[in-house]
Amino acid sequence: MRFLDTTLRDGEQTPGVSLNPEQKLEIAAKLAAVGVDVIEAGSAAASEGEREAIRVIANAGLSAEICTYVRALHEDIDLAADFGADSVHLVIPVSDLHIAKKLRKTREQVADMAYDAVEYAKSRGLIVELSGEDASRADQQYLREVFTEGVKRGADRLCFCDTVGVLTPEKVADYIPPLARIAPLSIHCHDDLGFALTNTMAALKHGASCAHVTVNGLGERAGNTPLEEVVMALEVLYGYTTRIKKEELFKLATLVSRHTGVPLPINKAIVGEMAFTHESGIHAHGIMREPATYESIKPEMVGRKRRMVLGKHSGSASVEAALAEMNYHPDENQLKAIVNRIKKLGDAGKRVTDTDLMAVAEAVLAIECRPFIKMRQFTATSGSHMIPTATVTLMVNGQEMTGAATGDGPVDAAMQVLRKCVADVADIQLEEYHVDAIRGGTDALVDVTVRLSKDGKIITSRGASTDIIMASVEAMIAGMNRLLREEHEDRGKNPR
Amino acid sequence: MRFLDTTLRDGEQTPGVSLNPEQKLEIAAKLAAVGVDVIEAGSAAASEGEREAIRVIANAGLSAEICTYVRALHEDIDLAADFGADSVHLVIPVSDLHIAKKLRKTREQVADMAYDAVEYAKSRGLIVELSGEDASRADQQYLREVFTEGVKRGADRLCFCDTVGVLTPEKVADYIPPLARIAPLSIHCHDDLGFALTNTMAALKHGASCAHVTVNGLGERAGNTPLEEVVMALEVLYGYTTRIKKEELFKLATLVSRHTGVPLPINKAIVGEMAFTHESGIHAHGIMREPATYESIKPEMVGRKRRMVLGKHSGSASVEAALAEMNYHPDENQLKAIVNRIKKLGDAGKRVTDTDLMAVAEAVLAIECRPFIKMRQFTATSGSHMIPTATVTLMVNGQEMTGAATGDGPVDAAMQVLRKCVADVADIQLEEYHVDAIRGGTDALVDVTVRLSKDGKIITSRGASTDIIMASVEAMIAGMNRLLREEHEDRGKNPR
Repeated sequence: MRFLDTTLRDGEQTPGVSLNPEQKLEIAAKLAAVGVDVIEAGSAAASEGEREAIRVIANAGLSAEICTYVRALHEDIDLAADFGADSVHLVIPVSDLHIAKKLRKTREQVADMAYDAVEYAKSRGLIVELSGEDASRADQQYLREVFTEGVKRGADRLCFCDTVGVLTPEKVADYIPPLARIAPLSIHCHDDLGFALTNTMAALKHGASCAHVTVNGLGERAGNTPLEEVVMALEVLYGYTTRIKKEELFKLATLVSRHTGVPLPINKAIVGEMAFTHESGIHAHGIMREPATYESIKPEMVGRKRRMVLGKHSGSASVEAALAEMNYHPDENQLKAIVNRIKKLGDAGKRVTDTDLMAVAEAVLAIECRPFIKMRQFTATSGSHMIPTATVTLMVNGQEMTGAATGDGPVDAAMQVLRKCVADVADIQLEEYHVDAIRGGTDALVDVTVRLSKDGKIITSRGASTDIIMASVEAMIAGMNRLLREEHEDRGKNPR
Repeated sequence: MRFLDTTLRDGEQTPGVSLNPEQKLEIAAKLAAVGVDVIEAGSAAASEGEREAIRVIANAGLSAEICTYVRALHEDIDLAADFGADSVHLVIPVSDLHIAKKLRKTREQVADMAYDAVEYAKSRGLIVELSGEDASRADQQYLREVFTEGVKRGADRLCFCDTVGVLTPEKVADYIPPLARIAPLSIHCHDDLGFALTNTMAALKHGASCAHVTVNGLGERAGNTPLEEVVMALEVLYGYTTRIKKEELFKLATLVSRHTGVPLPINKAIVGEMAFTHESGIHAHGIMREPATYESIKPEMVGRKRRMVLGKHSGSASVEAALAEMNYHPDENQLKAIVNRIKKLGDAGKRVTDTDLMAVAEAVLAIECRPFIKMRQFTATSGSHMIPTATVTLMVNGQEMTGAATGDGPVDAAMQVLRKCVADVADIQLEEYHVDAIRGGTDALVDVTVRLSKDGKIITSRGASTDIIMASVEAMIAGMNRLLREEHEDRGKNPR
């Protein structure tokens, strides 16, 4: 079972996505390290940056075969060879729709172009994967003829492209076996109707030996078949062993997401934020007794960790476990009261952070709750002729501290000045700053989540306001308070 | 073919998602209008807000059957009946793993709980869908016995739950037919390994008559089978006609995304931002000659529109078409130069907006490019004891304009003051303000896109800075300039 990864070609054709040569090289190196067999690095005809990327990747000494997309044109093939590719993904439209409407040619003309291009690419020393574009809507007899003759002319491998995602497993069972008998066959699927994985798995079952995939399923329109899903389905559901380093899949996914700017969908299989996160009471309860009850695989298998979060669906078992971790030990009635308040927060549409849970617990347990840090005043200024600046006056453990700081923007300045003012008592790091996408208008509520750490202890905290600066300050101060109070006022707890 | 939509129950169990009763009612009403047969409105045992939502939805007179999730407990069934549900999704763990590890009971105990719950639910006048949790890992002989006896005790329908997403089409072909002969059978799939749609389609083929689905595939962990994908696959790939109003699917998707706060993945089939968007030269060229070349369905079929965008993969045909729409008509060499510059922008990792294209075109066509609006100074201030305020001095068509405005935050204040300063010459509306999710640190580059309109003309524009306020101002001024210059300086164009 082989994998051709086309994240850097079809994946990059996702509208709005553009990678520079350095980013492409970093992703290619990771793909090779993860174990894909072929990397389609780009389309040399597309742009100068694209050619530079292909050259850099081809010269990087990666273990994978480096392939580029070409049309049946000598100029495309020359670029592929000149910039150092090992192989070409030579794409020929094979449906009458594409032949007549897009190219305005005849079947014979297209076939002749294909044979000529195969011979020319072989003469330039390239491995040739001859690929039928829109094969799923093509006359299958014509496709078989083109593929048979193409292989005679020198093509090393073939590829069946379901260009617009209209294939079904039933058609796969019909179309694929005769083609797979001609030469090693790849399957290239698109997800327009959600069938990319279905059809790819069906093709591998019916004789295809290579799957075209992209990381996170990026690609034209609804994207291509996701690498991570094919690999895990093959291994977990069908007992195959692939050469892919599964424990690196999540790192690869986040690298691609970062460079392409396409966020990982939270619900995406294997790599989504929530794929191994549990909230609901029944599920959390099951997981605590035996993780396999609500997990198809161990998260560590793909380089991830299980996470439990609290919300309106939480049951008392998971709230109790989270409280115990924070060293709160409520009795049965107190626990019930805490669970109820957590559910109320959830009912109001809130995500429940660590600081929310602590605030609720302390209110219910009647623990005195004197904040370590109080804000007296805060101002941030930004503009066309000034360095973004923030000033703050805090009461830190009863002592007044005033400070100012500049930053890359007013939010950055705010974070800097807050850390500065408490620097004498604690070294607090901002591990992560997160704002959900802002859509609609400028009067929308902005929800800021921060992850702060101090001496290895990590805490999440949230702020919300129509003012992104004030939301950030609120999140930061709430989180700092929790980190500091823990240490300076750990009396009042209720150990059992 | 029936659909039970569980967006409001399993979908809402997506960690971090929480809907209030008003939001649930709005989604339920839309689901009924779109044509789903059964709406699983929630789990009455979860929280008070949840019960209120069920009550409100059950009393809204919707055309769909209103169902709620219950465990095999009289208290859960009482809540369902008391709050007005038509039916219960009565869930019984059936795998030994769930029975022994989660419930710490025996098969016989669980079966007896199931029968008792079925009888009690029927005595309370409820329609009963008896559902086997973790059915795909259960002893199938045991499952058949429980289902057979459950139907004898009064269950109206059955459901096979692939709770952790480990089913395959091969197992479906084996497990489903004997169960579907007992009573009408639903299939409930999870997408942990990407197989939710595959297995749902296979089950419908092998005798199941109802699919459990969620809008946008929300749900525990990697989510459930997406409504929109099952509907479109059935209609487009298999020629079935469902009762679903397909042209409303996108509106439903955006409504659910807005209320849940879960963004639509850009590459998601049917409903993703890019599902009908084209950038690459070959594709755009094909689309212009015949849309079917690169589209599986007409976008209008699901309430969407085709969109062409420009970037490094754009070919000259699509750049020329976009320019013609803006009334620029370059000759062949000029067009080549414009395409090259657009590709360079793409190579540098930029999304190419309307204002980028216009700027490039005017540079190449040597059209004089005196900005209508120039910024002299800008300041924004925000803080704990003040109303967010922005001041600006603009040169508007040679005349100095100074103004100040307050807003819900400093960004909002900035947008207000800019609109105010040009109000005398034009009424410009901010149609959309968009910031991608900010991750990592507070020094990240923030990319702001705005959509502005004036007298029906719409334009997109972008600004980028580590300072979110300045990025917003940059996007706004660039866009306003384009909208105003268009009108005040339409000399210099090159009409042919």
